[in-house]
Amino acid sequence: MAQVIPGPLQDLIDALGQLPGVGPRTSERYAYYLLRSDRSKAQSILESIKKLHSGTKYCPKTFALIESGQDVSPLYSNPRRKKTIVAVVADPFDIVAIEKTNSFSGTYHVLGGLVSPIDNVGPEHLHINELINRVDADKVEELILATNASIEGESTALLIMQKLEGKPLKITRLARGISVGMDLEYADQITLTRAFEGRQLM
Amino acid sequence: MAQVIPGPLQDLIDALGQLPGVGPRTSERYAYYLLRSDRSKAQSILESIKKLHSGTKYCPKTFALIESGQDVSPLYSNPRRKKTIVAVVADPFDIVAIEKTNSFSGTYHVLGGLVSPIDNVGPEHLHINELINRVDADKVEELILATNASIEGESTALLIMQKLEGKPLKITRLARGISVGMDLEYADQITLTRAFEGRQLM
Repeated sequence: MAQVIPGPLQDLIDALGQLPGVGPRTSERYAYYLLRSDRSKAQSILESIKKLHSGTKYCPKTFALIESGQDVSPLYSNPRRKKTIVAVVADPFDIVAIEKTNSFSGTYHVLGGLVSPIDNVGPEHLHINELINRVDADKVEELILATNASIEGESTALLIMQKLEGKPLKITRLARGISVGMDLEYADQITLTRAFEGRQLM
Repeated sequence: MAQVIPGPLQDLIDALGQLPGVGPRTSERYAYYLLRSDRSKAQSILESIKKLHSGTKYCPKTFALIESGQDVSPLYSNPRRKKTIVAVVADPFDIVAIEKTNSFSGTYHVLGGLVSPIDNVGPEHLHINELINRVDADKVEELILATNASIEGESTALLIMQKLEGKPLKITRLARGISVGMDLEYADQITLTRAFEGRQLM
């Protein structure tokens, strides 16, 4: 079969096959598409990959992704964002999801993952110590643990709570409950239990 | 929202979003994955995109994809492949699919697409004239029209048949019928009709 697909094309198929969730067929489709289309498409991917690592870095305060020319995340330096309210998220893209709601005016802290023994991610791999420093330095009044509603998300949240025990601040987490628009009968047991626990006055 | 995702990352998200079937979420996932993983992954994609266009070309005889150092497709120059039997396919990757069956020992001719008025692809965009020349030059005895079983595939096949009318060669096309392992009740009407028409002695 080696002679059927030319080497350089096979190399690209293999390289694209490393992307998450991309199998050999998809990767073949991507590679052949790039080969067949106008060179500018391949060029734009090429240029942007080139600048990806050199053009971005992590904010030293919040660990959000920022441009390499920036000192600190604009979401942190912006004087209109409350430094005393901090939403703790696992990944930089969680910030995008929360910003889209337009309902949060505090600042963020990116953990850089969630505790997951199966993936060999322990608390020491996350930006938890930096978070504790920030709590003191910025006189944080409320910490919103906005981690996923998964086992990893819950246990990371618990861990952070324990580490901050005794500090004079409010620690909250995102409400768990029925997704808006969802039928009760399709909600899983745990979600429904959480929705009962968190029931609110009308 | 512009300030939430750093420019270079957004550029890559946009660039990868041009790939077929890749929406904004998938493209975000790919880009963030490349950013987070070892630089060698991004580097391997970078290198292979760089060499993609310069390292490959179309075979001047069969229009299969070959390496730029090759004169002609090895599937054509191989003396063990019969030049008098030619399978006509739409795209270079169709060759891969057929080669996997290990049941064809002729040569290929890639049309470079199928006639599709909706996409502005007319017969003049396909390598049909080159096919006609090959029929004469290689004294082709059988032409297997191995195009898709779609409207475009069928009409392209018909068109080629018309153009070759009067030439002393056998023109065949792939059998249409029930896919192996498929239940009759799930076969669509046209497929079932074709399966009846093409019924074979046991």
